[in-house]
Amino acid sequence: MAGSVFGKELVMTTWGESHGAGIGVTVDGCPAGLSITEEYIQTYLDRRKPGGRDFATPRQEADRVRILSGIFEGKTMGTPISMMIENTSQRSGDYGNLATTYRPGHADFGYDAKYGFRDYRGGGRSSGRETAGRVAAGAVAARLLEEYGVRVQAYVSAIGPVRCDPSRFDTEEIGRNALAMPDAAAAAEAAEYLKKLMEEQDSSGSEVTCIVTGLPAGIGEPVFDKLDAVLGQAIFSIGAVKAVEIGDGTAVVQARGSVNNDGFYMKEGVVSKHTNHAGGILGGISDGSDILLRASFKPTPSIFREQETVNQDGENVKLSIRGRHDPVIGPRASVVVETMTAFAIADLFLRNRSSRI
Amino acid sequence: MAGSVFGKELVMTTWGESHGAGIGVTVDGCPAGLSITEEYIQTYLDRRKPGGRDFATPRQEADRVRILSGIFEGKTMGTPISMMIENTSQRSGDYGNLATTYRPGHADFGYDAKYGFRDYRGGGRSSGRETAGRVAAGAVAARLLEEYGVRVQAYVSAIGPVRCDPSRFDTEEIGRNALAMPDAAAAAEAAEYLKKLMEEQDSSGSEVTCIVTGLPAGIGEPVFDKLDAVLGQAIFSIGAVKAVEIGDGTAVVQARGSVNNDGFYMKEGVVSKHTNHAGGILGGISDGSDILLRASFKPTPSIFREQETVNQDGENVKLSIRGRHDPVIGPRASVVVETMTAFAIADLFLRNRSSRI
Amino acid sequence: MAGSVFGKELVMTTWGESHGAGIGVTVDGCPAGLSITEEYIQTYLDRRKPGGRDFATPRQEADRVRILSGIFEGKTMGTPISMMIENTSQRSGDYGNLATTYRPGHADFGYDAKYGFRDYRGGGRSSGRETAGRVAAGAVAARLLEEYGVRVQAYVSAIGPVRCDPSRFDTEEIGRNALAMPDAAAAAEAAEYLKKLMEEQDSSGSEVTCIVTGLPAGIGEPVFDKLDAVLGQAIFSIGAVKAVEIGDGTAVVQARGSVNNDGFYMKEGVVSKHTNHAGGILGGISDGSDILLRASFKPTPSIFREQETVNQDGENVKLSIRGRHDPVIGPRASVVVETMTAFAIADLFLRNRSSRI
Amino acid sequence: MAGSVFGKELVMTTWGESHGAGIGVTVDGCPAGLSITEEYIQTYLDRRKPGGRDFATPRQEADRVRILSGIFEGKTMGTPISMMIENTSQRSGDYGNLATTYRPGHADFGYDAKYGFRDYRGGGRSSGRETAGRVAAGAVAARLLEEYGVRVQAYVSAIGPVRCDPSRFDTEEIGRNALAMPDAAAAAEAAEYLKKLMEEQDSSGSEVTCIVTGLPAGIGEPVFDKLDAVLGQAIFSIGAVKAVEIGDGTAVVQARGSVNNDGFYMKEGVVSKHTNHAGGILGGISDGSDILLRASFKPTPSIFREQETVNQDGENVKLSIRGRHDPVIGPRASVVVETMTAFAIADLFLRNRSSRI
Repeated sequence: MAGSVFGKELVMTTWGESHGAGIGVTVDGCPAGLSITEEYIQTYLDRRKPGGRDFATPRQEADRVRILSGIFEGKTMGTPISMMIENTSQRSGDYGNLATTYRPGHADFGYDAKYGFRDYRGGGRSSGRETAGRVAAGAVAARLLEEYGVRVQAYVSAIGPVRCDPSRFDTEEIGRNALAMPDAAAAAEAAEYLKKLMEEQDSSGSEVTCIVTGLPAGIGEPVFDKLDAVLGQAIFSIGAVKAVEIGDGTAVVQARGSVNNDGFYMKEGVVSKHTNHAGGILGGISDGSDILLRASFKPTPSIFREQETVNQDGENVKLSIRGRHDPVIGPRASVVVETMTAFAIADLFLRNRSSRI
Repeated sequence: MAGSVFGKELVMTTWGESHGAGIGVTVDGCPAGLSITEEYIQTYLDRRKPGGRDFATPRQEADRVRILSGIFEGKTMGTPISMMIENTSQRSGDYGNLATTYRPGHADFGYDAKYGFRDYRGGGRSSGRETAGRVAAGAVAARLLEEYGVRVQAYVSAIGPVRCDPSRFDTEEIGRNALAMPDAAAAAEAAEYLKKLMEEQDSSGSEVTCIVTGLPAGIGEPVFDKLDAVLGQAIFSIGAVKAVEIGDGTAVVQARGSVNNDGFYMKEGVVSKHTNHAGGILGGISDGSDILLRASFKPTPSIFREQETVNQDGENVKLSIRGRHDPVIGPRASVVVETMTAFAIADLFLRNRSSRI
Repeated sequence: MAGSVFGKELVMTTWGESHGAGIGVTVDGCPAGLSITEEYIQTYLDRRKPGGRDFATPRQEADRVRILSGIFEGKTMGTPISMMIENTSQRSGDYGNLATTYRPGHADFGYDAKYGFRDYRGGGRSSGRETAGRVAAGAVAARLLEEYGVRVQAYVSAIGPVRCDPSRFDTEEIGRNALAMPDAAAAAEAAEYLKKLMEEQDSSGSEVTCIVTGLPAGIGEPVFDKLDAVLGQAIFSIGAVKAVEIGDGTAVVQARGSVNNDGFYMKEGVVSKHTNHAGGILGGISDGSDILLRASFKPTPSIFREQETVNQDGENVKLSIRGRHDPVIGPRASVVVETMTAFAIADLFLRNRSSRI
Repeated sequence: MAGSVFGKELVMTTWGESHGAGIGVTVDGCPAGLSITEEYIQTYLDRRKPGGRDFATPRQEADRVRILSGIFEGKTMGTPISMMIENTSQRSGDYGNLATTYRPGHADFGYDAKYGFRDYRGGGRSSGRETAGRVAAGAVAARLLEEYGVRVQAYVSAIGPVRCDPSRFDTEEIGRNALAMPDAAAAAEAAEYLKKLMEEQDSSGSEVTCIVTGLPAGIGEPVFDKLDAVLGQAIFSIGAVKAVEIGDGTAVVQARGSVNNDGFYMKEGVVSKHTNHAGGILGGISDGSDILLRASFKPTPSIFREQETVNQDGENVKLSIRGRHDPVIGPRASVVVETMTAFAIADLFLRNRSSRI
């Protein structure tokens, strides 16, 4: 039980259902003295908002965050920071026909199996909307990391067969196109691909990449709370993620040690590496290089095509999903990956303060 | 700090360095009344032991587990189960020349950056030997799951370019060959590949697959302690893992929703799925299908070839590693994947007891 | 850090400052299927409200609780229950002169020493108002316990030198008098005593007793999460508590074993005890008898009499506190003791579900 | 479940039954670089050992602690410190007749009610012997606190009706007499009292006082992990404790605010207090004064006098306890109070490192 709490020193507790009163989060353990504003947090929330992007659902979610506690005269007080986003767009009629049917690819069946019943309105707690709380919490973490020169940036690196070309990588481009890709050409190509899929009442998988720069060596706690282990939990806790990779990821299976080992060398007095196959993590501890992670998102399970499924009475039925659904998850989820990464790292960053007497 | 504790209801705390007095673990929270013996736990430990397998290091580690508490008259009492494996093979001279040099691909530099110094003998706490404690703890968890008809099985599915052929899959074969592969032909081919790499003083990456059968629907806690999130942490906490995949894993990036969605249907009164792209987890909760996960292990970083690196005085140096090292990690690590999976699932299984009034 | 989270299976996270936007709490881990309403929770909050009692401060705090998540069609869903009480009465001018001065008996100096600054408006996070969140969370726990026949009742057993007479004990009386005492005569006498103290610009200590009935034997987790240990933390976490006693409490120092041991005997097939010196807890585990605990509250530190203190510039100053303050803490705090007791027991009650296979 | 884990940053997990292989503890989260030896820890264990004191049981427990991990070249490495005390004195025949009978004042019945069965040999996990693990862990914490000038000292302040006279307080005396009292005259009087009780086959209650000096202001985490709340859990987790008091404790019930408030004043540039009724804790945070706590221990429940009780078959029976039992708990438990206090404070001390950016 009690799976809505994350972190050990920096702890967030999220709450809220898709069609309830709102979505919220409490961040406990943020050190005192950090300057932070609602506007700062709002910029993160705006990035996961639909409506601002062509391929996102046309719902008008205001998603205005309100800080309810923990900040005094513009600074964190060391006390819990409670934030809430009221639910304003709740056309509950949209989802009524799903009350008794289990959508393929969704948690409906699992929730019923677990709890005996569920909030069938818009996915309830298992809705993607739940991530709004985490994004707000992760924005606080990102603000904290900023203070120490650590920066976290996520983007969409692939949609279906379309993959960004590293030679065209442009950070500025991430915020310019509707698909959060750092490669304008790939974004255009992916847009075409998605358009075709939508015509076919289908959806696409996607990949989000996240890079952390400026993290000093020594962050991460052996044995179970290794940096990659905590990131693993953080990223897999995002709905629809089916794979998490650090550094070279699955490619290491075919690699040889003589190539995969990143040789150390001294660069301007700092221990550096010639390559970064490890993605900045060795033995679960940061090595001072950039942290590199990738998350593979499955295709949006809500598709308009008629599907076979069962209902809660144990009958085989046909299901047609209506409503508004993104054809791809990555573009809106990239900020969730970014903020969850920031939160996980900020927690370990604080925990590291006790590593030496 | 305090990263050697794992689990919420079923909690393990591991301890021990490679060349200290021993390796151990305490399992707290195991329900009373479970029959368990040292022999049962030993069978798991024997699977990670070197010496019994051709391609593993020739060290003779006795690795005899001793149960120190928590069992009375052959049954768990509900009190902490403490287990210890004494270190018997400690030729400390083997590692002396590594006291001041950072091995590429290892945690040496990270430990020094974090703690200011480290136990340089055999990797200390970051040694693969640390996993003996987890294996013992996971064996207890596996015994607990067995009681409820849940079975966990891991094996090596790929070594370098050699991949098992699903059409030749044979569970019995896993225990027969030195590489823990369920495909005798692939095992033979992989053995040739490893022999060649060893001649080249090199090492290979590998992939471990783990399957959980018999797990009922409803296990896993939304939001952060989803079944896949907890597994993600559990598996990434194993050294050398660079990717964790659930179900189709990274392949979902290129998938379409119409194919990736596993349609539900009723099979003999049970909610079933035509396919299992999801790997048995939807929205972080088990759906009653088999749980499928894969872990990608990087090549053994300890290779005999001379490498470039730096020492703790910040000098560029050449390093030649001596001693005994496996050319591939997967075969010995597969039981670690299996037991960590068992432990993570057993914990969530117990936590689920509070899902309903 | 992160000290606003309490419980292991049933977990609450509170937030909010006295003069911020509101006070709130999220309860994670409540099993699904429990009927609960805002009205039910409100009855608990009303008991800690000032204004309804003669000797409480005349502030008009509406203290209306709003359930923001976790309840669907009148029942808990197993997801986090978020509750909020908006702050409506915030005459911030009342407290302005305390911005730089440390009130004796308050946490002002400690907060500054810890965090470098503090919300000086009404005590901020250290205000008694913070307890509103816990009371709401504890009301959920009380509702859960009710389902299993467990009932928790707290009352004021002493105010200054006035102590309730057990021979006049009347449960109904607790809700009838302004001092929450189960003895009308003692309540009248205590009221006289408090009136005199108020004329002298002074305040009184008090004692709250709490009784838990219907708790089965076997609740409480050895070694550190014994029933009394968790209750100890829960009750000491309430501001102004300086002693917690279980059963005979401090009187055991002078007792003899032959008297203090509660002999067991069979009563209608149930293991019972002739006496209950132990207060229902043996070895940290409930024994099936009533749980008896007492909390000693210090006198309200906010008194109108001029006091000597220092300010944040390190100067000795005189302080005169204005505003509205209760002359005694127990009457309003009794519901806090009751709900914290309920929460602690509900958590251990759920944890006990894993005691056997 | 899982109640044998204590602490958040500095975490201990204890294990072991009275008549099993041994008693042990793992301390995770101790910062690297702390000098510590087995001899240092042994001095703490020796203080809880029977045999060295006239009124303690005549068993010859060697109680030699062995450090199994976490220390390298005399210093903590930041990795878990595992310590074990082998059980050497196990005359299991002594306790055989208690296998089916519930001793009054003991946890026997509760364990059976909880787990379905229990280790009846010497109390199993609920034996006082379990505290050896905590004492070893607390000794590490005491060593850590020493590094920062914090000193923890516990002693017996009362046995039955005999109370130490503050005017005769002598720290040196604590280690000199068999009853750990800081007042030689009181110790002599208490010895007479105990001798008389032993003749009457009876036992006495006792009080242990603990003083912490040198703790800076600002330690303790609002709201639930207040310094007094964490101490409350720590001390109540020690068997036989029925009351915990901070500062004036239960006396505050009869106190007035004008007296109970400790006025602040500046003393050599430091915020100080004229009195210390608060026992060094205000609002759950240390105020820079000495921390004062008291624990009331019930009389030893094992008495030789025949007692009425029931057996596990639900029959009323007479019970005569044999074996070796102290007539009073305080003298041997004082070091347990001291080390649990040290551990709780060390944990909060480390947690405070994240109070500010």
